[in-house]
This record gives sequence, C-alpha cells and structure tokens, in this order.
Amino acid sequence: MIDASLALYSTAPLVETFSPEAHIRQLLVFEAALARAEANVGIIPTAAAEAIAAACRLDGLDVPGLFAAAAHTGTIVIPLLHALDERLDPATRDVLHWGATSQDAIDTALMLQSREGLHAIEADLQRVCAASAALARRHRTTPMAARTLLQQAVPIPFGLKAALWLALAGRRLHALRRQRDEALLLQFGGAAGTLAVLGDRGMAVAEALAGELGLRLPDLPWHAERDRLATLVSTLGITAGSMAKIAQDVVLLSQTEVAEVRESHGPGAGGSSAMPHKQNPVRTTLALAAARLAVAQVPVALAAMAAEHERSAGGWQSEWAALPQVFLYAGGAAAHVADALEHLRVDAARMRANLSAGGDLVFAESLAAALAPAVGRTVAQGLVRDVTRSAATDGRSLRQAAGEEPRIAAAVTAADLDRIFDPESAWGSAQAFIDRALTVHAGPDADA
Amino acid sequence: MIDASLALYSTAPLVETFSPEAHIRQLLVFEAALARAEANVGIIPTAAAEAIAAACRLDGLDVPGLFAAAAHTGTIVIPLLHALDERLDPATRDVLHWGATSQDAIDTALMLQSREGLHAIEADLQRVCAASAALARRHRTTPMAARTLLQQAVPIPFGLKAALWLALAGRRLHALRRQRDEALLLQFGGAAGTLAVLGDRGMAVAEALAGELGLRLPDLPWHAERDRLATLVSTLGITAGSMAKIAQDVVLLSQTEVAEVRESHGPGAGGSSAMPHKQNPVRTTLALAAARLAVAQVPVALAAMAAEHERSAGGWQSEWAALPQVFLYAGGAAAHVADALEHLRVDAARMRANLSAGGDLVFAESLAAALAPAVGRTVAQGLVRDVTRSAATDGRSLRQAAGEEPRIAAAVTAADLDRIFDPESAWGSAQAFIDRALTVHAGPDADA
Amino acid sequence: MIDASLALYSTAPLVETFSPEAHIRQLLVFEAALARAEANVGIIPTAAAEAIAAACRLDGLDVPGLFAAAAHTGTIVIPLLHALDERLDPATRDVLHWGATSQDAIDTALMLQSREGLHAIEADLQRVCAASAALARRHRTTPMAARTLLQQAVPIPFGLKAALWLALAGRRLHALRRQRDEALLLQFGGAAGTLAVLGDRGMAVAEALAGELGLRLPDLPWHAERDRLATLVSTLGITAGSMAKIAQDVVLLSQTEVAEVRESHGPGAGGSSAMPHKQNPVRTTLALAAARLAVAQVPVALAAMAAEHERSAGGWQSEWAALPQVFLYAGGAAAHVADALEHLRVDAARMRANLSAGGDLVFAESLAAALAPAVGRTVAQGLVRDVTRSAATDGRSLRQAAGEEPRIAAAVTAADLDRIFDPESAWGSAQAFIDRALTVHAGPDADA
Amino acid sequence: MIDASLALYSTAPLVETFSPEAHIRQLLVFEAALARAEANVGIIPTAAAEAIAAACRLDGLDVPGLFAAAAHTGTIVIPLLHALDERLDPATRDVLHWGATSQDAIDTALMLQSREGLHAIEADLQRVCAASAALARRHRTTPMAARTLLQQAVPIPFGLKAALWLALAGRRLHALRRQRDEALLLQFGGAAGTLAVLGDRGMAVAEALAGELGLRLPDLPWHAERDRLATLVSTLGITAGSMAKIAQDVVLLSQTEVAEVRESHGPGAGGSSAMPHKQNPVRTTLALAAARLAVAQVPVALAAMAAEHERSAGGWQSEWAALPQVFLYAGGAAAHVADALEHLRVDAARMRANLSAGGDLVFAESLAAALAPAVGRTVAQGLVRDVTRSAATDGRSLRQAAGEEPRIAAAVTAADLDRIFDPESAWGSAQAFIDRALTVHAGPDADA
Repeated sequence: MIDASLALYSTAPLVETFSPEAHIRQLLVFEAALARAEANVGIIPTAAAEAIAAACRLDGLDVPGLFAAAAHTGTIVIPLLHALDERLDPATRDVLHWGATSQDAIDTALMLQSREGLHAIEADLQRVCAASAALARRHRTTPMAARTLLQQAVPIPFGLKAALWLALAGRRLHALRRQRDEALLLQFGGAAGTLAVLGDRGMAVAEALAGELGLRLPDLPWHAERDRLATLVSTLGITAGSMAKIAQDVVLLSQTEVAEVRESHGPGAGGSSAMPHKQNPVRTTLALAAARLAVAQVPVALAAMAAEHERSAGGWQSEWAALPQVFLYAGGAAAHVADALEHLRVDAARMRANLSAGGDLVFAESLAAALAPAVGRTVAQGLVRDVTRSAATDGRSLRQAAGEEPRIAAAVTAADLDRIFDPESAWGSAQAFIDRALTVHAGPDADA
Repeated sequence: MIDASLALYSTAPLVETFSPEAHIRQLLVFEAALARAEANVGIIPTAAAEAIAAACRLDGLDVPGLFAAAAHTGTIVIPLLHALDERLDPATRDVLHWGATSQDAIDTALMLQSREGLHAIEADLQRVCAASAALARRHRTTPMAARTLLQQAVPIPFGLKAALWLALAGRRLHALRRQRDEALLLQFGGAAGTLAVLGDRGMAVAEALAGELGLRLPDLPWHAERDRLATLVSTLGITAGSMAKIAQDVVLLSQTEVAEVRESHGPGAGGSSAMPHKQNPVRTTLALAAARLAVAQVPVALAAMAAEHERSAGGWQSEWAALPQVFLYAGGAAAHVADALEHLRVDAARMRANLSAGGDLVFAESLAAALAPAVGRTVAQGLVRDVTRSAATDGRSLRQAAGEEPRIAAAVTAADLDRIFDPESAWGSAQAFIDRALTVHAGPDADA
Repeated sequence: MIDASLALYSTAPLVETFSPEAHIRQLLVFEAALARAEANVGIIPTAAAEAIAAACRLDGLDVPGLFAAAAHTGTIVIPLLHALDERLDPATRDVLHWGATSQDAIDTALMLQSREGLHAIEADLQRVCAASAALARRHRTTPMAARTLLQQAVPIPFGLKAALWLALAGRRLHALRRQRDEALLLQFGGAAGTLAVLGDRGMAVAEALAGELGLRLPDLPWHAERDRLATLVSTLGITAGSMAKIAQDVVLLSQTEVAEVRESHGPGAGGSSAMPHKQNPVRTTLALAAARLAVAQVPVALAAMAAEHERSAGGWQSEWAALPQVFLYAGGAAAHVADALEHLRVDAARMRANLSAGGDLVFAESLAAALAPAVGRTVAQGLVRDVTRSAATDGRSLRQAAGEEPRIAAAVTAADLDRIFDPESAWGSAQAFIDRALTVHAGPDADA
Repeated sequence: MIDASLALYSTAPLVETFSPEAHIRQLLVFEAALARAEANVGIIPTAAAEAIAAACRLDGLDVPGLFAAAAHTGTIVIPLLHALDERLDPATRDVLHWGATSQDAIDTALMLQSREGLHAIEADLQRVCAASAALARRHRTTPMAARTLLQQAVPIPFGLKAALWLALAGRRLHALRRQRDEALLLQFGGAAGTLAVLGDRGMAVAEALAGELGLRLPDLPWHAERDRLATLVSTLGITAGSMAKIAQDVVLLSQTEVAEVRESHGPGAGGSSAMPHKQNPVRTTLALAAARLAVAQVPVALAAMAAEHERSAGGWQSEWAALPQVFLYAGGAAAHVADALEHLRVDAARMRANLSAGGDLVFAESLAAALAPAVGRTVAQGLVRDVTRSAATDGRSLRQAAGEEPRIAAAVTAADLDRIFDPESAWGSAQAFIDRALTVHAGPDADA
C-alpha cells in the first residue's frame, strides 16, 4: 500500500508514518480517545468506551476499500465509522464518534501523524548538525576558496562553511521543535465548530480528549482557519530548502574540476550505467530533488487558507495529500544530506590547490586592504587591478607581480606580502564565527 | 505498491499506469526494443535480442528492492540491469542496454507511460464534453442568472454556461492530442547525447528504436533541454485548472441558497458523519482538490528546466515524481467532473426563481439599454439606478417600479417592458454561441 | 518611479517603503551608519564618517540611472558608491564602505525596509482585529447558518465567525511581531562572510553597526543561508492567505442569493460599467487578488534557499524583487480586508431568513442528537433522514414533519421541539469561544 | 510611473509595453475601435465614432488618479469612462462603450499589449538563436567535457552544446509565434457574455471590432474560461525556464575552476564592491533571477482558471498583474541571455585542458566500448574500472595505465588506443545533431 518509488525521496519511518494505513490507525486512535474522554466526563458509559476502544484496531479493515468508498462519500471517516459499526452492538454504535465531525477526526489524525513525522525529521537534522559540527571542528583551519556568484573570492576555512551548515540545520531543528508546541493541536469542534451536540460540556470533553491524545487544546476550533497548518507546511518547506543549500554546496564541491569533497558510500553507489569511472553525488542530488518536491506543496497549503465558511470545498481536501507529501520529501532531503555529510571525504590538499590555481587572485582583496592605509582605497584598488591584469598576461602569480610592482613594494614589505598571501591571516572573524556556531550546537537544549 | 489514498484524487487506470511496477515494465519495454533495434541494424546478434526480450519481464523482479537500491545508485536503471544480468548468459549480458544511458531508458519509459496516461485522460475529457453538450442542448432556453463577481448580473440560458464548459473541455482535448504528437518523443543519446558508442550507426539505431516503440524521433536528444516535458506538464496543469473551473461552478450552484444543480450519485454519496440532511458536492469538491495538487507540480517541471550541462543534478530526478503526479491528479479532476456532470440534477424552476428573487434586478441592464435610444445612455442609467433604489426601498419589483416611473413610461410601452423583463429576449448572441460550441464538438475530429 | 497600478493591490505607505527610491535611501542609511560605527571603533576618522554621512542623501541621485547601471555591474551598490565618490574628497572616498560587501548593504537595506513594512502591515492587521472584535461583540447572538462545503450545516452566531476572523488576524499580528525580533537582522560579513578586511575588529564594528541601525546582530553572517528571509516571506504569505480567508467569506456572504453582508463604501464603489444595479464586493475581491500575488512570491524565496556557496548566482537577485512584492501585496490584502470589515453592512434579518429558507434543515443535527438518547444514534439518524425526505416532498418544514412523525413525537415533547428548533439553543460552546477570542484580543500585548 | 528597478530584470521595450500608461493607451484603442466598429455596422452615428476616437488619447489623463479610483470601483474602466465622458458631448457620451463590459476592454487591452510583448521577446530570442548558431558553427569540433550530474562524463564538441541551445531557443520562438495565433483573441461579450445589448447584431459588431484591432475572433467570449491565457502565461514561463537552462550552463562554465567561457561586456561589468579581481557572470545571473520571477507568475494564472461563474472575484484581478510580470521577466531573461551569448568569450584551450585534467577519465566509456567486442561488456567494464583505480593510485593517466595492462594490450593495439583517446573520434552522432539544429534554424520560417 506504500508507493515503492518513495524510497528515492524519503525514509522508511516517514513512509510508514504517512502511509494510508497509518492514517487509518490514527483515526482509530482519535475515535477511541474520544470515547474514553466522553466516558470520563460522564457522557457515555465506560463500558461503551471500552468496547469502542477495543473495536478501534486496524487489523481486519480493508484500507483500499475504505479509500475507494471515501471517494464516494467525500471523507474517509464515513466508511470507517460504518466499518466500526459492524464491530459494535447497537447501543455502543450509537455513541461512537459522538459530537464529533469528520474533520475533527481527520485533522487530529494528521496532527498525530505530524508529531511522529517531526520526531523522525528532527532525528535526521540532528545527524546533519553532528556531522557539520565534526567537519567544522576538524577543518577549522583548512583553507579553501570562498566563492561568490561561483567565482573564487577570498580564502575561508572550510570549517566556516561547515559551521554555517551547522547553524542553518540547528535553526531548523529549533523551528521544528517550536512547531511541536504551536502547530500540533487538537481539532474538535463538531459539525460547525460549536460542539453543539455536547451542550455545555463541550469544553470539558475537549480538554479530556486533548489530555488523552497528548495534544494541546487550541483557543478555538480551526476547521477553516488554516494558518497554523500553513505555517507547519512552510516550516517543513524551509527545512527542505535549507537541506537544498547544503546539498547544492556538496554537489558543486564534488564537480570534477573542483573535487574538494566526495560522497563516499562504498561500492556501487553513484555509478553510471554507461560510464564506469563516474562517481556521482547521489545522496545530495536526490536531496535536491526531494527538496523541490517538498517545496511544491507549500503553495497548496497557502492556497487552502482561503477556506469557504466553516469547511472548505477543495482546499481542505488538498491538504490531506499536501501535508504528508511535505513531510515525506522534506524528511528525505534531511536524511540524504545527513548520509552525505556523515560519509563526506574532504580533500584538503585539493582545497588548497584550487585556492592557488587561479594565480592566487583570491588574495586580491587582502592586498588591496593592506595597501589602502598607505595609498588610499581607490589607488590601492587601481594598483591591484593593474597587477592582477599584468600577472594574468605574463603568467606570474599575483604575489610575484605585486612584489615586482614598485609602488606596492614601496608600501608593504616582503614580510607583509607573505602575511597577506597566507590564507590563515585573511580569516578575520572566521574563527569567532565557527566558535559561535559550535557553542550554540553544544548548548543546553541542543539534544533536547 | 499503490498508494491507496490516491483513490480520492485519481482513477484506477492512471494509478495503474503510473505505479512503480508500471515504470519498471516500461523500462523493460525500452530495453527489449533497444535490443531488437540493434539486432535489426546488425549491431548485436538476433539471438541476443531475443534472449534480452525474453528476460525483460516484470514477474520475478523485486520492485521495492529495486527502488531501494536506486536510492543508493542514483537511478533505477542500474539495479534493474543487474537484475536482468542474472537472467542472461554472459555474452548476451554484454550487449544489454548497449550504447544507452540510464536517462535514455527512464525518459523513454516516462513517455510510454505518458502515452497511456494521455489516452486515459482524453477518455474522461470526452465524457465531460458529451455531458456538457447534452446539458447545452437540453437547457438552451432555460433561463438563469449570470453572475459576475458572484453578483447576479443579467439573464443567460443555462445552456450557454454548459456550452462554455463544452468548449473549454474540447480545447483541452485538442491540447492533449497535440501533446501526443509533440511531447511523446524517444529519448536516445547515450552517455552524453552523442550516441558515441554506436559510432556512425547511432541514427540508424535511433530510428529503428523509435519505430519499435511507436514514438517520434526528436531532432536531437533532450537530456537537459526539458521544454517539451515542461509543456506536457503545463498542459496537464491547465487541463486540471479547466476542470476546476467547471467544478467551481457546480459547487457554487449547489450552495443551499442557490440550489440550482445537485450532484446525484445515489444513497450514501456526499453525506456527513454529523449531519444527516447534508448532500455535499463530493465529486466536484474532490475535483477541486485534485486540480490544486496537479497544478502544484507545474512549478517543479518549470524549475527543472534550468538543468546543469548534459544531465541535471536534482531537477531531472524531481521530474520522476512530478510527471506521474500531474497525470494522476489532472486525470482525477477530469474523471470527477465527468462523473458530476453525467449525474447532474438541474433544477430549472429554481434557476428561474433565483432570477426573480432579487427583485428582477438582473433586467436592469436591459432596461437601461432599451431606454438609451430615447433618453441617452447617461440619463437611462441614472433613471434605472433611481428606480432600482426606490424599488428596493418599498419592496416593489423593478418591473413595477419602472412602469410607475413617468419618465420611463414616457419612453417605453408596457409591451416593451414585458419584452425587456423576459429573460429570453435578453439573450443576444447566446444561441449563436451555443450553436458554435455544439458544432465544434460535433466536428470531424471530435471523436478522433 | 512608482508603478501606478499598485494602487489596486497595495497601500500608499507600502508603495513608498518599497519604492526604488526608498531602497536607495536605506542603502545610504547603511553606508552612513557603517562609517559612524567604524569611527566609533576607531577604524576611520570621525571627520570622514561625518563627511560620508553628509554625502549619503538621496536628493541629487539619478535613481533610474543607478538601476540601469546595476544591470551592467550586477548590483546597485557599485554605481551608488561611484555616485557617492563624486561627493567625497579622495581620502574620505577611501574609507567609504570599508570592509563591507555589496550584499551587506543590500540585505541590510532590505531589512530596514522590512521593518517599516512590518509596521505598516501590523497597523492594518490591528484594524482587521478591531473591526472583527466589534462584529463579534455586536453579533454574538445573531443566528446564521454555518456552511460546510458551502452547504448549510447547523446554526451558529455570526459573532463566532467574526471571532474566528479576530483570532486569525490576531495570530498573524503575533507572527509578524515575532518576525521583527527574529528576521530583522543586520547583514555584515564582508566579501565572503569573514570580515577579513577588519582583522580582529570585525565583531566590534558589527556590534556598533547593529546599534546604529537598531537591528539585532545575528550569530553569523547569512549571505547564503536564507532560512530567516524565507521565513519572513512565508509569514507574509500566510498573512496574505489569512486575509484571503476573511475576504472569501465576505465575497460569499455578499452573493445575491445570500446577501447577508455587503461592503458599503458610498457612491461609486463597486459599480459596473454595464450594469447599473451591481454592487460588487470590490475591496474583498481585490484582497483575494492581492493575496494570490503575495503567495506567488513564497516559492521564489524557498527556491532561493539553495544558494551556491558564499553568494548565490540567481537566487539572491530574485529576492530583491520577491521580498518587496510579498510585502506590497500582503499589506494590500490586509488593508482591503480592514476597509471591508470597517464598512461591512450586516443584514441580521437575512441571516435568520436564510437559516429557515432551506426548510429548517439546519436543525437536523440537533434533532438527531436530541432523539439519540431515547432511540439511539442510528435509529435517530434514520428517523431524521426519513422526515427530512418527507418534508422535502410535501413542502412541510422539518419542524412540522418531525412533530407529525409518531416515533419522534413519542421521544420528544413539543416543548423539546421548540428548543431544538431554536438556533440559540444549538450553540454549544460558541459563546465560550467568542469570549476566548475577545479575551486574547484585549490581552496585555494586544496593542503593543 | 515605471518601476526603476525593473531595469535589472527586463528590457526597455517591455517595460514600456506593460507600463500603466500603456495599459490605458490600449484601453483607449479598444474604446475607439469599438465605436468605429459600431458605426460601421450602423449602430451608432459615424460622427459619434469619430468624436470618441478623438477623445481616446492618453495625454491629459491622470494615470495615477485613474488607478487610485480603480481601487474604489474595482476596475480601471469605470473611472476611465468617466474621464472620457468629460471630453464628449452628452449624445456621444451615451454611445461610448456601447454594449461592452469592463472585462471586454481590459482583456482586449491586455491582448494588444501581449501582441507587442511577444514581438519584443521574439526579437531577443532570435538574437539567442543567432548567437547560438554562430557558436555551434565556430566550435563544431572544439572538444570539451560533457558533464552529467556535474561530473565529467565523455567528450563532446562545444558546438553540440551550442546547437542544443539553438534548438531550444528555436522551439521557444516557434511556441511564441503559435501563441500569436492561438492566444491573442478579441474579448467581447458584454455584461455576461451574451452581447445582449446588441440584440441580433452582436456577432456583426464583434467581427468588425476584431477587424479593427487585427485580433482573431474566438468561438465564444472567454470571460471566465482562462485556458488560453493560462497557456500564454505558461508558454512565457517555459521560455523563461529555457533561458535559465542556457544561463545556468554559462554560469557553471564561468566558474573559476572551469573558466571555459566568460561574459565579456567591457570595463565595469561584473565587478565587485569588495574584490577588485572579480569578473562575475552578471547577465546570466540576472537572467536566472528574472526567469525565477517569471515562473512565479505561472501558478497565479493556473489558479485563476477556477473562475467563479461568468466573471471571477479575485482570479481575474490577479491576472492583471501576473500577465505583465511574466512578460517583463521572461523577456528580460531572453535579453540577458542574448547579451551574454553575443559577447561570450570561449576558451577552447581551457576546454581541452579541463578534459584531460581529470586523468583522461572521460575516455573510460570509449575504452570500455572498444574492449567490449573482444572481451564482453562485463569484463570490459571491470577491466576499465581496475585500470581507472590503479591509474588514480599511482598517478598515471588512464591511457598509460590501459597500455600497460596486459589484458587490454591483448585486446587493442596502440593505434586503437590513440584513436580511443582522441576526443574527436568519440563524437558519434554529434556532428549530425549539430547539422540538424543548424538546418532547422536556417529553415524557411526561421526569420518569419
């Protein structure tokens, strides 16, 4: 009942959590908890609640048949209740789903699935954090070229790049944890959000039900106010986009001509059906694909916000597919990135070699900055531009050309030049930034 | 292996066509056809081609296992070829997939699936056309209110609305048929689009392979030029959007306060778990949901166009999911709309009643137009605005208030007023438009 | 220099805040503040900082010329610095923009614009809250039909609908205020995020600069980690979507056949060029359009997250347009909704009339619930379905048909029936929910 | 009145064509043509038509004032007609806009703007084609590495890459020309699509009006059937995506470590405010940004298709902004790409150097293919994998390692190896593909 091709884009726990079967299972959890809550409040007999809870088991239900029937009735809850009816005696049947509406069950089931889904993604994000932190520590003084608009710019330590990945993934972990508190809410309003059938005991049942399920009780039912669901979906979309940033960096660093990192997953991974020498960055490529598929669901949730009156016709029904999909794909992106970073081979020598391959032009900014106090920024930049050009023309390095340019030699000593062309001296606040990211990562709630 | 919840949004033929199993099946079709084509051109032995064709059968393959392996290798083709290898003797194994690359197989398989998918959707669109045409004919003189910005405007025949649905669905049918010719192309370029391994016989194999598969041969391979695939996806998205237009109309006409049409699918359909009297427009609601889910895949295909060099890292892999999804959901929207229209109960009396419920204000434009030749448009509109207001104040109909306004009575006779307030006299070119839509529908290639 | 057609979709303050001129103005604010910060830290002379601050004025700059040049240089900052150079003596020129990169200036300017933009939208959201609260209070016992899937469901007080609008807008206000704290950050990293040119004084300058601008200092520069910007854009998109929910309700309630509310903006508003009687819901229609245009920018920001290395080629440049647009359109949606609600004419009589127009079927759920204790839910629902059908057949009201059905009469008294068919008795927890929304709205930080 | 920042993303002709002023100008063209058409058919006096045509001039109109008023009335046409009224005597005033509705004027004006917009974009696409064709011809035998998933794969001629750009841009040119015929249609239906006010002369006026404007007459009015507009917008989005493909290739080839091409626009272009040596790919970076902004409008048009009844409330109004934006940004992407290709510096030596930089591994596929007839594909691939690994270990080239491997030496001669490691011998059908693209480009309607 699970689409096999999801293996490319998602993880086994998420595929399980958002399977059609799991949705039915959580609907059953809702119905059982509702019965218990109503028994606790004294609305239905305890024996009835127990009978309902006993009936609410997945085994024996025809899941494809239920969904096929749902296409006829408009919601999965109606055929599911019919199926449960057959397991109950008439009196108990009469108090099943008492006071609730289909949307109460479906939205709450989606929240229960989302709770599991958030846990699963958080686990993979923690792997991303841990792997990034390890890279940041190990490579805090490994020089590489920063690249802006894909042009080499100035030297940075590779550890800074990893620290930025760490801080990014850490913020997403924080954002998902916040969603646990803010988005995972009980839905319980009855036919039109008034809990009318429960008379003056609606709030008591709602509180008991929230307690049963371990979900927070919202201020009001939210049948047609979908801002929190849209926020959950967007947060997952942004998580996917964050994974895409890391994946994009890895894919670009893996290019044959750059070759500074390589995914390394043992024999067979990343091969080609036509080219025996290929070693493709498979995990990060699939992470990029998964991230795009995750992001595609965000507009569905945003459009569904324009819900008609007390229950929307079309928008809500689109969320049933959009919410699972954004979880599946965002989580897949996180897992793929975690796998890639955990097995990343870093070629520090190549990083250093690439830095100087371009004629040490990445030090041009440092040189101009060093000259500026003596000759002014404008003159300094002009000088650097000139020696850059003349170095390019006759094949000298920028270091050599600078040393041979009299106006530069007059302004800085050879020792200055050595320092200027030393990547480690050009790092400014990089080490402080790396420390900040590592400190936050090691902070009190880092493993909460 | 098929996601059961797709029953809500799609149709059985499309779910089958775009199942993981079906993708494998079409990959096998490609590999078998390639072997036959190469045997025909004399590149591999005929016996090898026959052995390969015999090995290319779905039964016995572990489909979930293949996709799980694909997450490791990056494409499904590599584990599939390994599985086929086990069915072949070493010599035949050596010519399997000869000269092709994974993308040749995957893209071509997607095209073969798309061919089936287009046929399935066209069949449902034809049902939409037929049902719309029947409504247009039956209700060509049934008056109802046109509504602009959801305000009653002027009378139209319901048949005109149905004729516009017909023309819309007919254009989509035409657009999908064009895609059959323009988008369903063989993909065959080898490792990097040059068919290098086939030397000077690449074009001959390509032609033979296209012939085997009944696909057109493109001018050049299209590994990284995805405009035609993006056009196919957009065309399906626009088809979904067109179905949403019809569904939206039906949902709005079904409102309790309007009640001019009703989906009618027999007992159980559209009921509510809480409200025994509800009769929800289930098919069109699910059509709206499916259309939104279809449309969400269009940006995925558009973004995938920015493919890197000769094969993209991320974009192409996202298409593997986006193309099936847009087919599944667009086709579901069409099928749901077809079902709704085929079982639509039209309440012509209610249409007429709604027309006059608003104090016959929908005739205001006709009245102003009839007065204009006598008093000028500006004066006429002012007069109509005045009597509209005074009619609203004292509860008279516009017809009555107009007859009692001396300046209007001076300009038009009572017989004129009867004609002005007769919906059928206000139809202008509506009948001509209905005829046009019906004529196109009945045209030579209408059932092609 | 401001696109006139924005008047349809946005507000004057936002159009001003996000004009090209305003962007230049905030870039100048950045450059002046940077000079002051560097003077404070002792990196540049105070006199130079004063000269730079004096030069950083908009008047005299050729804004279209600057943007035309930016298309050649790739960023607006380069031509702007050239223009400022002409206002400075050579020595001062040399310390202008010292240690910063174009992206520091542009991102920070966008944050300063965003701060103004958030204030402007919050003001309109507060108007939405106040108008919704007033409606919730005034109509807390005005009965109307709840509608699910656009079908009348059960009675609710109109005040509950308004309370849900209030709670929704209140949550968005809260979300935007949080963005003030979390998204409005200084950008300052120098060429590649290390503040290399500033040596060991980078952090000191960053702190001073943040202080000058009143922006928070982030943990690390965020040139290529765009999660916070994507969150800001999404938050605005969700705000737009929330406004669309309210606008959608108003548009639907304004339908000729429903006519429960009406936008009321005096003569001329919402007229038609062809139909003198039309009174279109103009503000909410334009709010719906603006919301769709706002939401369209969210995927741009999400896609831009996959930034290449230390500065992206394409994604970042798309944000320059996407961020202003989401502010402009989301704010326009909020303002249009505020205008509509502030001038909303509510027809309570029509609400009550519509409730009973459908043969009082909205009380079917109450009837079934009242019968259930006596006969069981299943029998009760069957009974209600039967009398519903027989009432529809012979034109009786459900109340009448229920009273005449022996099995029902045996279970409930006439007084019970009176109560069951009284909308106010069917409200369950509605009043409690209204109180909750009003309490939150009146809470301590409601006007913060 | 034109947003100055559009200079970054669009072209002067498109900014002019889609300015608010130009929209008013085309509305005036519509009103004048309608009057002439109605005079021709004998519905209004010729003198009135002439007076109206004379009044329909832009100068003297307060464009910002008109749009501000439109936010009150809901469409721009109402205040525009009021402004024109002041230029007409009462009798003429009465026949202005006779029989038309606001949507007739606005949609037709958008079509007239689109006609100009298509011409402008086609001109830039022809530049892309011409520049690509020149590159394809000049570099038809310049070897470079094909790259799949950004890994070097096999050698291709750079001319093949350019030929694929040419074919892609040529198909977009063809697609836009088709839109001229299929999407640019007169809109003319009157208040609700029946031309009611014109009685039995509606079709005659429609034909005359279409003739006046040089627009095709559709089968039926299309007020609420937006498939053709959505197709136009999608076609432009796909054009933008196609430009993004070319731009992406150029940006990637421009990377410091690849350096095979460079945008070359003279002094100042692509510099950095911080780094004097930078030479950024400005045009293609802005093309990528513009393409993303263009694509963002496609979902707006797709969502607008779910139009309510005879005129939508929200969707149509969003198209007024979405259609201009997709033209502006798609056209900007095309112009930027054309500029980049026209000034592209190609470094053929670097292409060849990059090919061999990776230890000549790109010839691995050729080697395996050459060995296969002798030893079988499986053995051949194993052998090649072995020598690839041993070459990597001890720093030999693949060529050398292959020559020294006895099993390979037994299967192929040294002369074979020379041929195998010659990029030109590995091109398969590349030259034929280049010829195909050039032939289509030079075809009969290439310059139509």
